[in-house]
Amino acid sequence: MTELLPNYFNGTWQTGTGAGTVLTDPVLGTELVRVDATGLDLAAGFGFARAQGGQALRALTYRQRAAMLAAAQKVLQANRDAYYDIATANSGTVKNDTDVDVDGGIFTLGTYAKMGESLGDTHFIMDGDAARLGKDPLFQSQHILSPTRGVALFINAFNFPSWGLWEKAAPALLSGVPVIVKPATATAWLTQRMVKDVVDAGIFPVGALSIVCGSSAGLMDQLQPFDVVSFTGSADTAAVIRSHPVVTQRSVRVNIEADSVNSAVLLPGEAAGTEAFDLFVKEVAREMTVKSGQKCTAIRRILVPEALYHAAAQAISARLAKTTVGNPRNEAVRMGALVSRAQLVAVREGLDYLKGQATVLHDGSTAALVDADPAVACCVGPTLLGVGNADGSDTSDRVHDTEVFGPVATLVPYRTTDNSIAHAVALVRRGQGSLVTSLYGSDPQALAWAARELADSHGRVHIISPDVAALHTGHGNVMPQSLHGGPGRAGGGEELGGLRALNFYHRRTAIQASTAVLGQL
Amino acid sequence: MTELLPNYFNGTWQTGTGAGTVLTDPVLGTELVRVDATGLDLAAGFGFARAQGGQALRALTYRQRAAMLAAAQKVLQANRDAYYDIATANSGTVKNDTDVDVDGGIFTLGTYAKMGESLGDTHFIMDGDAARLGKDPLFQSQHILSPTRGVALFINAFNFPSWGLWEKAAPALLSGVPVIVKPATATAWLTQRMVKDVVDAGIFPVGALSIVCGSSAGLMDQLQPFDVVSFTGSADTAAVIRSHPVVTQRSVRVNIEADSVNSAVLLPGEAAGTEAFDLFVKEVAREMTVKSGQKCTAIRRILVPEALYHAAAQAISARLAKTTVGNPRNEAVRMGALVSRAQLVAVREGLDYLKGQATVLHDGSTAALVDADPAVACCVGPTLLGVGNADGSDTSDRVHDTEVFGPVATLVPYRTTDNSIAHAVALVRRGQGSLVTSLYGSDPQALAWAARELADSHGRVHIISPDVAALHTGHGNVMPQSLHGGPGRAGGGEELGGLRALNFYHRRTAIQASTAVLGQL
Repeated sequence: MTELLPNYFNGTWQTGTGAGTVLTDPVLGTELVRVDATGLDLAAGFGFARAQGGQALRALTYRQRAAMLAAAQKVLQANRDAYYDIATANSGTVKNDTDVDVDGGIFTLGTYAKMGESLGDTHFIMDGDAARLGKDPLFQSQHILSPTRGVALFINAFNFPSWGLWEKAAPALLSGVPVIVKPATATAWLTQRMVKDVVDAGIFPVGALSIVCGSSAGLMDQLQPFDVVSFTGSADTAAVIRSHPVVTQRSVRVNIEADSVNSAVLLPGEAAGTEAFDLFVKEVAREMTVKSGQKCTAIRRILVPEALYHAAAQAISARLAKTTVGNPRNEAVRMGALVSRAQLVAVREGLDYLKGQATVLHDGSTAALVDADPAVACCVGPTLLGVGNADGSDTSDRVHDTEVFGPVATLVPYRTTDNSIAHAVALVRRGQGSLVTSLYGSDPQALAWAARELADSHGRVHIISPDVAALHTGHGNVMPQSLHGGPGRAGGGEELGGLRALNFYHRRTAIQASTAVLGQL
Repeated sequence: MTELLPNYFNGTWQTGTGAGTVLTDPVLGTELVRVDATGLDLAAGFGFARAQGGQALRALTYRQRAAMLAAAQKVLQANRDAYYDIATANSGTVKNDTDVDVDGGIFTLGTYAKMGESLGDTHFIMDGDAARLGKDPLFQSQHILSPTRGVALFINAFNFPSWGLWEKAAPALLSGVPVIVKPATATAWLTQRMVKDVVDAGIFPVGALSIVCGSSAGLMDQLQPFDVVSFTGSADTAAVIRSHPVVTQRSVRVNIEADSVNSAVLLPGEAAGTEAFDLFVKEVAREMTVKSGQKCTAIRRILVPEALYHAAAQAISARLAKTTVGNPRNEAVRMGALVSRAQLVAVREGLDYLKGQATVLHDGSTAALVDADPAVACCVGPTLLGVGNADGSDTSDRVHDTEVFGPVATLVPYRTTDNSIAHAVALVRRGQGSLVTSLYGSDPQALAWAARELADSHGRVHIISPDVAALHTGHGNVMPQSLHGGPGRAGGGEELGGLRALNFYHRRTAIQASTAVLGQL
């Protein structure tokens, strides 16, 4: 039997009392470790985090907690090789893709350590200036942000066991709010190891950071009015979380990041072979294949002027054809596996569904795998679909509604009457709210105008123009400085965005008082 | 038959096709008007507001929309007398109480007109400064706030037919988001008249402001991902709204303001007869009786040092005894009616429930009504309850959990070992999140410390010290400059707070681009 990973909960390492769920290598099919949460005293563990962890964290200042984030970052950096090994085995990712998760998480943690320092040795945050409540300035209103007196429960997704933990935990811990993380079972190992390393280093107060691996059953029931829950995953599970009585009846604050049918838009006036066109092709092919397309921010819809449909199809396909797929341990391999057989099935089903309204422009399903057994490995080559012409873009509703969580995207041509992007904008909006759209062009004014038109339906607009060809941070990479989240289908959440991330973990209060009292705050 | 009030919906005035619901005078019992929403084409009306109203509003700048708010304010001011007559008849409120609703609403509208001007002739709001995304400053992230491309549905409470409309509509319209208001049926008349006056004046674009009176059936079903809904009312209805599929599945943004068991705390060290003690007694008695206690911000729990229990009971009771109750048309009357027989029954039931764990210190139920028939009028005198001693404060859970929406409050004594307010703070927190708490004392440091302790469980902390005796704005009055809302039981919402109110109607987006593109925004 494989090792049963212990949970860190209620201030102690404890294994579940059940047989556990096996985590497997998605390339080799071998069994790795087991996780289990059976028999945990959930009420005690949540109570412990709230009372011990919360109180100890709140007794520290922002600067002190920021220093702890920095110390945690150092611990993680020191153990980086072990994380890469776990990711290779459990996520089936090539080194570059592991980097996005592991180093992305460590970088985000470090960024919050630095930003947190700027908040100084205080216990709450001033929110704006005092405002007079009448002609006499003696009585004023000063808003402040106080850490919420509860726990932060994270129910995380399988695709980012490292980054998904730290992009949420860094702002929470900096805010003084204890964290209980429930990683997705399929890839829980890396999250568990990172938490273990940080806990063993004794950096944070006991109860500040807990982990429960295995089933999420009963976790939501433990939440109380001052707790918060942050979920990343499917829209279906998101709806279940939002319908839970602790949310509907006790106002537990929820952040959701769910399905997102992201887009990339090549603006009119950029002929095939121009720099903007080439940057567009390169970014689309890259985004389709990074982490085998298992990124909530990956490009799913590729919008091009109708006249460039064939040129774009050809150029993107040519790049995709070079993507070798297979065992990430083989240095010739560019793209590893999907996370599980279940995901492989889901991606194939999703592809079939999309094909009902689109044709295949590049077929990755037939490519030979490198160093991997197709009967075992959860590998699939990148596939480019297309809807043919601008009328097809209007009538193919599936492409606008369906997130296939693999290396799959669809070319969506738009009409460019009078060089307008109105049709492109209308098509992008049919995604009903997305995490990110990227725009490609060389005219700053046209790019800025398109960004403003698309802003309200996106959490982020990433603009690639030739002047930032070597500098831009990538359509799909989530930078801690920028908001991560999106309205509507994308869940309506807000994460990161620099210190904005702290809002979720704080309560805003207007203090109305005499200037003498406000001066004592 | 009384007049059937028309709805303004889908760009036209139209009456419902049903018999309608009768609105009555809660003092005289007479029938006033009828409202009905039967037969309205909801899909068409919501679509019209979204397309016509939204587009027209967004084409204007903040400054232009602010000017419209100012124009609307003038119209309302010109028709003020009519609103007072409607309020007297339909809400049964005395002039001072009508003032809180009618003039409070007009004042809030005017405040947003002024604040909006400062946003200038722009179409979106810059959110913070641009942040570098690497060492090279050429590629940066700039956050912006864009008006959401949907409608704002308001499902409002019966106690503030004027203020409840304008405190929500002013930030929404200023943001460029069209409003559809569904006032509570019992007092819908005043809301309908105000909307009618503003619509007839032709100030806002057609579709910017709509009203549906009567049943709310089907309204939520119309919402789409970019719409928002703001609800004020009971926790039960709030849970229904939050469980609706448009919220759980389509991420429709929700703001809830529900039950709140607000408190007032006299700090230790303020003997009976001191200025702070007297200010405390005066404010508590005032808050209990304003609008017959039908204010979501009204004081429900009165915390005093245990040693002052009897002195406080006596002093507050003495003030309450002077409160004449009855027909608001009689100038001798200080407190009018509850809004309906249903509310009268609910308040009596709530009182009985509280009495199961408290004793009556001042009984208002037996006072003779002035100019009103007790068999008809929905009048009830103010009642002060008490839990006897500090142990009673701990064991009487009902007082911490129950909002009786009438002139009812309970005296809750706390232990003051070592002059500490720890026990008071713990008792206040048992409210599980409230809109407001008020603190009374003369030591700025002690007041500031208590404010910080209680901030995280309140949307507002109102501090009354002798130096602001004549200046403070009142425990229960909601100032547009300050946040209105509270965590947990209070619903977790945020309204007002100056320009912070606009956040709910905007979407935040990180624009990542070269400085050349950002310069064109």
